[in-house]
Amino acid sequence: MAGYPANFLFRQDGGRRIEMEFSGDIKSYPEVILEKGREKRLLHGHRWVFSNEITVSLKGFKPGSWVRVVSAKGAYLGLGYVNPNSLIAIRIFCPPGKKPTLGYFRDLLTRANSLRRRIFKDSKVYRLFFGESDGLPGFIVDRYDDVLVYQANTHGISAIEPILVKMLAELFNPRCIVYRNDSSARQLEGLDTDKGIAFGSLTEQGLWVNVDGLWFWVDPIEGQKTGLYLDQRENRKLLKELVKDKRVLDLFCYDGGWSIHAALYGARYVVGVDQSAPALERAKVNATKNGVADRCSFIRADVFDFLKNDQDRFDVIICDPPAFAKNKKALSSAIKGYTDLNRRVMLKLTEGGILITCSCSHHMSETLFHQVLMDASLASGRRFAILEIRGQSPDHPILLGMPETRYLKCFVLHMT
Amino acid sequence: MAGYPANFLFRQDGGRRIEMEFSGDIKSYPEVILEKGREKRLLHGHRWVFSNEITVSLKGFKPGSWVRVVSAKGAYLGLGYVNPNSLIAIRIFCPPGKKPTLGYFRDLLTRANSLRRRIFKDSKVYRLFFGESDGLPGFIVDRYDDVLVYQANTHGISAIEPILVKMLAELFNPRCIVYRNDSSARQLEGLDTDKGIAFGSLTEQGLWVNVDGLWFWVDPIEGQKTGLYLDQRENRKLLKELVKDKRVLDLFCYDGGWSIHAALYGARYVVGVDQSAPALERAKVNATKNGVADRCSFIRADVFDFLKNDQDRFDVIICDPPAFAKNKKALSSAIKGYTDLNRRVMLKLTEGGILITCSCSHHMSETLFHQVLMDASLASGRRFAILEIRGQSPDHPILLGMPETRYLKCFVLHMT
Repeated sequence: MAGYPANFLFRQDGGRRIEMEFSGDIKSYPEVILEKGREKRLLHGHRWVFSNEITVSLKGFKPGSWVRVVSAKGAYLGLGYVNPNSLIAIRIFCPPGKKPTLGYFRDLLTRANSLRRRIFKDSKVYRLFFGESDGLPGFIVDRYDDVLVYQANTHGISAIEPILVKMLAELFNPRCIVYRNDSSARQLEGLDTDKGIAFGSLTEQGLWVNVDGLWFWVDPIEGQKTGLYLDQRENRKLLKELVKDKRVLDLFCYDGGWSIHAALYGARYVVGVDQSAPALERAKVNATKNGVADRCSFIRADVFDFLKNDQDRFDVIICDPPAFAKNKKALSSAIKGYTDLNRRVMLKLTEGGILITCSCSHHMSETLFHQVLMDASLASGRRFAILEIRGQSPDHPILLGMPETRYLKCFVLHMT
Repeated sequence: MAGYPANFLFRQDGGRRIEMEFSGDIKSYPEVILEKGREKRLLHGHRWVFSNEITVSLKGFKPGSWVRVVSAKGAYLGLGYVNPNSLIAIRIFCPPGKKPTLGYFRDLLTRANSLRRRIFKDSKVYRLFFGESDGLPGFIVDRYDDVLVYQANTHGISAIEPILVKMLAELFNPRCIVYRNDSSARQLEGLDTDKGIAFGSLTEQGLWVNVDGLWFWVDPIEGQKTGLYLDQRENRKLLKELVKDKRVLDLFCYDGGWSIHAALYGARYVVGVDQSAPALERAKVNATKNGVADRCSFIRADVFDFLKNDQDRFDVIICDPPAFAKNKKALSSAIKGYTDLNRRVMLKLTEGGILITCSCSHHMSETLFHQVLMDASLASGRRFAILEIRGQSPDHPILLGMPETRYLKCFVLHMT
């Protein structure tokens, strides 16, 4: 974990550093002036300043240190933390009107949690904090009952990580806080990758959590991302009305999230396909725990190979692949990939079937993904009506002024 | 009701015309050739051909008569019905591979109904047929248990209206079929406006229907559109997690659909505002029937006046206005109207409040409405996260290849 930010005040206490407070005096932080006309996005609530939008070089700045962002006309636009080596040079974490005191950070965490408690009254399993959307770019926290798992994906967060861990511990009284600082975002930011326990302990390798009545095994340290894909939670509930007595195929099934929902909602049988052996092991354990193992089979295969070789057809297919376009450059080949995948999947549907098809690449806009599906439909010779277009669960809120925070697209199609 | 289409075969039966069958011989219908390159949209499943996309004038064609649409290269693209006096010159109702027999029309109605029965298992209240999306451009049917209410919004539908009514009667065994041929769409199409009973009878002026556990009075003849706004059905369920003990404002409340959901889900109190006295009368009757009249008050006012004059603030506000942009020309003033409305509404929210804000103008795209909300947020000085972006209920499906069939946008915003 990196050191405290440059502007951090501390005192010695028996040889241990104890944080006191950040300077609430905004003027004490150095000023960075934007190029003319570059303030508009920030005024709308966007959090990023790109390196070509500022009038000075940030070369001398320590990654993660704090600066005042000011428009060409001198208007104060918020306090941000810098990364001199990234295209995203500054990320705003403290808007005008707020002071970056410890109380401010604590308040962000509390407010984020309150929103989730309002949405998921009976559940303590949710994304507690979603980076930019909740006010701290790069900070992600998932809550699995009394275990918290976080990612510190920016230098700015890394610099205040010990303080955030302490606050999480104080505010939510977890038995364990796990850090998953092994994301590709962290590599892009120029941070080292690591994972482990930041607070408390895990007696077992993971834990059972209940999400909307279904049990899932969470492995906070070895699972993908922080353990579960909570962003599809609300979308999975859609299956309730769609799968009764149906044959269901779950592509890129990971730990069986969609499969087990389908089986519990009355599917005749469910076939889940994924390439990862440990994920499929968890899927089987989850199916057994939920009492639906007899109706679920999980196949280890490359999904494209499976679609080419398998001859069966299915009444309901879920296609929820990992992001094909991790960056803008990869977009055109990702479009081809998504089109080909969806064409093949469409051909695997029975007459009148339902396709739930997703993209979690934020470079793939909803409009673009819609076009991909139109092209796939044309190529497959199958026609579809859209029953719903959905996004990520509300514990992954989208910042109104920052479309980049909207990444998940989920189309529910009905073959007509 | 208009006459039979030109290509309709019939025989005399004791002086009464009894329909026998349409000619399934596609070649028997006249051909209309598209300009070069104009087939792409149709290949994607779009249903409309614009008047500037065809090589001949349709002046000699009887409105509602049938033509074969063919690409410049000679590829058959489907059978459509014409309106020589509309910008939308041809609407495809029968794609390649299908024959326009009576069985084909019956099958469209049956399939549309099956989809709804699959989605709404325990309910016979839904949009049974949604025009273009279900295969017959301009034909809308809502089902209120054993009463059907339809709109025939195109010449093509008007021409076969008696057949469709007969099929509806045979397939769904209703006690009454009401026609609401008084839409503005019909005026645009050059059809006369009228409403009444096409089959059976209504003993009372309306009927009580149960939608997801709530009772609503439907007045098929005097209500707006066909009686209820079913397109917000799934969105209203969102209130369940959001209104407990909250003060709720329902703007453009019509018959209290949102208000009564909010009251039943535990709102402290609900204020509904609308300009229509008869709609508010129905709202009060509905509130009483659902046992929540003590927590609902309905105010007759212009919503803008109300927002200017009323001093109270609310924790949850629903803003679900009628379409501001009825056509493309009206779009720029509609943008101003939506921005001003949403700015005022945002200022009426308490700290941390929830705004559910909608647009049902299909000329206002989701991207445009998102921009409107960003501008309103900037002007109001309030910041928001988007918890969900939703559309119309799945009984109003969107045609994958025809974005025009997507008209309802519903943003759920949380003040941050």
